[in-house]
Amino acid sequence: MSIYQATASAPVNIACIKYWGKRDTKLILPTNSSLSVTLDQDHLRSTTTSRADPSFEKDRLWLNGIEEEIKEGGRLATCIREMKRLRREVEEKDAKEPKLSSYAVHICSRNNFPTAAGLASSASGFAALVASLAALYKLPATPSQLSLIARQGSGSACRSLFGGYVAWEMGSSPDGSDSLAIEVAPQSHWPDIHALICVVSDDKKGTSSTSGMQRTVETSPLLQHRIKEVVPARMAAIQRAILARDFDAFARITMQDSNQFHAVCLDTDPPIFYMNDVSRTIIALITEYNRVSVANGGTLKAAYTYDAGPNAVIYAPKENMKEIVAMIVKYFPQADAFKDPFQLFGAAGVEGSVVEGFNAAVAKPFDVGAVKNLIHTRVGDGPRVLGAEEALLGANGLPKTVA
Amino acid sequence: MSIYQATASAPVNIACIKYWGKRDTKLILPTNSSLSVTLDQDHLRSTTTSRADPSFEKDRLWLNGIEEEIKEGGRLATCIREMKRLRREVEEKDAKEPKLSSYAVHICSRNNFPTAAGLASSASGFAALVASLAALYKLPATPSQLSLIARQGSGSACRSLFGGYVAWEMGSSPDGSDSLAIEVAPQSHWPDIHALICVVSDDKKGTSSTSGMQRTVETSPLLQHRIKEVVPARMAAIQRAILARDFDAFARITMQDSNQFHAVCLDTDPPIFYMNDVSRTIIALITEYNRVSVANGGTLKAAYTYDAGPNAVIYAPKENMKEIVAMIVKYFPQADAFKDPFQLFGAAGVEGSVVEGFNAAVAKPFDVGAVKNLIHTRVGDGPRVLGAEEALLGANGLPKTVA
Repeated sequence: MSIYQATASAPVNIACIKYWGKRDTKLILPTNSSLSVTLDQDHLRSTTTSRADPSFEKDRLWLNGIEEEIKEGGRLATCIREMKRLRREVEEKDAKEPKLSSYAVHICSRNNFPTAAGLASSASGFAALVASLAALYKLPATPSQLSLIARQGSGSACRSLFGGYVAWEMGSSPDGSDSLAIEVAPQSHWPDIHALICVVSDDKKGTSSTSGMQRTVETSPLLQHRIKEVVPARMAAIQRAILARDFDAFARITMQDSNQFHAVCLDTDPPIFYMNDVSRTIIALITEYNRVSVANGGTLKAAYTYDAGPNAVIYAPKENMKEIVAMIVKYFPQADAFKDPFQLFGAAGVEGSVVEGFNAAVAKPFDVGAVKNLIHTRVGDGPRVLGAEEALLGANGLPKTVA
Repeated sequence: MSIYQATASAPVNIACIKYWGKRDTKLILPTNSSLSVTLDQDHLRSTTTSRADPSFEKDRLWLNGIEEEIKEGGRLATCIREMKRLRREVEEKDAKEPKLSSYAVHICSRNNFPTAAGLASSASGFAALVASLAALYKLPATPSQLSLIARQGSGSACRSLFGGYVAWEMGSSPDGSDSLAIEVAPQSHWPDIHALICVVSDDKKGTSSTSGMQRTVETSPLLQHRIKEVVPARMAAIQRAILARDFDAFARITMQDSNQFHAVCLDTDPPIFYMNDVSRTIIALITEYNRVSVANGGTLKAAYTYDAGPNAVIYAPKENMKEIVAMIVKYFPQADAFKDPFQLFGAAGVEGSVVEGFNAAVAKPFDVGAVKNLIHTRVGDGPRVLGAEEALLGANGLPKTVA
């Protein structure tokens, strides 16, 4: 008896041009295009094993060891149904193919980063789900075609189907068939871009992005101008910057668009706040760090960006990361030693410092814990199909017990 | 020998539709109209004495006891010059009038609120300057005509020439002759509007409004949409609300416009932040307080607004102020007893509390000092000409010594 099973991993992506607002909430069609950098799966990833078996009674899914209900008509059910539909097309073309589309599936997914990290896992999670089912079903689909399905799980998931620099084109068709991800440039085009994720402590329970973005669509007068006028120009400009490996332009647009996203959140009624005083302080530090560089005849050296929460992601060329980590640590002392995956610092670890000419008074140092954790990563590749030894489902078709 | 001297006081005003951006920085012509509520001079005021005397060698000015330089071509010099010009017109029409316009002036001004209160004193200060010179010079000018001159001292000062509800019409003339304040409704039309000023502690030195607003004009893509589309509609709507004494509409527009002002600050490059975590918490409290009212079939009961700093001003009908003070005190315990000018509370003072149905978890209480001070006031009248016993200049034409 054959075992039909596949395992895939997929990366996190962090947008430079932000997705905020749906024109169709069921199909998850956005009100504007967006663009992101895919982060390295060596550091942050979702891994998913999918198995189809005629003995399974129903579709089941476990996320980080806990079984989740697959609600009828919900986003998970939609993605699984759409993947089975693509499998059916394969089976209809080739009668020798086993009828996997008629079997129930067991899906087991796991993130290698804690939920406490405050990173949205829905993008990598839905991308890994779609990638593992595509491998299981041996689909001839391109990443862009798969992105159409991942998009219906979680909008930004569509961008995790590619590595490197990825655009989600909003499209115009009411059925969503042209609202998909495309690769702007692969990781190899500009591998030098690194990212420092600053995990910010937050007491406040934030507004979910799903409900928040629709409140913005309904109430922000400024959003329409952003959608119609600002984003199209920025999408074109940042793609040019990426193709030219022009970090100065990339950084400027990235920071402007993060700020504008939070501006339309604030223009929402009632207003939505995701950034807190720690987030604002990191903006002040990066602004001053860049000011010093520009004052010395240089270019922008780092770019901050904030999603729907207080965490900062700082993009920078690799050569600047040592200065950036030292600066953040100076103002945000860490309880734990900095995990230094690129070995920027010696055995003694990081010592907080700022560059020459930096006005240290732009911010006051915070107490330990204000920034809980620092994750240093970089631009990475797209979903990977993994070997059987990485499978998360055991021989019995149920999740392996984690030691 | 005659003494030519006059003393006037002028009020603070707090905008509901915000002024942010100049189309002419020299004449102080704004990019949009604005609207404010004048606050009661019994609580917050600037008082100014002006004297003209042939023995004075040059124009001199003392502010809160310290002599300030009157820089040539500066805002103070412009206001004094323009007032002298109006005086000259009086003298040219009536040869019997003493030639005060040819004398130097001594001007002494004092605010009854500490600078530490974090309230911009330039509006009340320039309004009192203009009002005292108008009294000294016995000008036949209307408040709107005087507002043209106060505007050149500090834009928002033009609105402090009237009591009640005041619009600053942006005008269209390049010489600024139609960019002036008009009375939308006097204090007596809607005397019931009270204000609670929450003075918020802030470590950070903020961006000055003068430089900040021009950076927004130069770099915010959203500002143009605000100027062209949003503000004209809101100006019309809030004037209707004031005329109809419709607090629900007044509150909604006031909060939306405060948020949009801070949104365009955030859309500025680099971004400008005036609100901090304390400001955001006060927004969350007012939002929840209003939610409870609306959920019970009522209307909005309070409106927050923030100028270029972290302080909140909460507008509300008088009947709601007791609940609002108690709510703020619950989350922001006060070092000093609440000064209770309207005697809302008994001898025991304020005890922190929230209304029934209020979700206390929308915010966590802060430590003493996060809100340093609470000032309860209300809508008030326009500039007052005061008697000689209130004069700030002594017989020798120099500031009286303050005990």
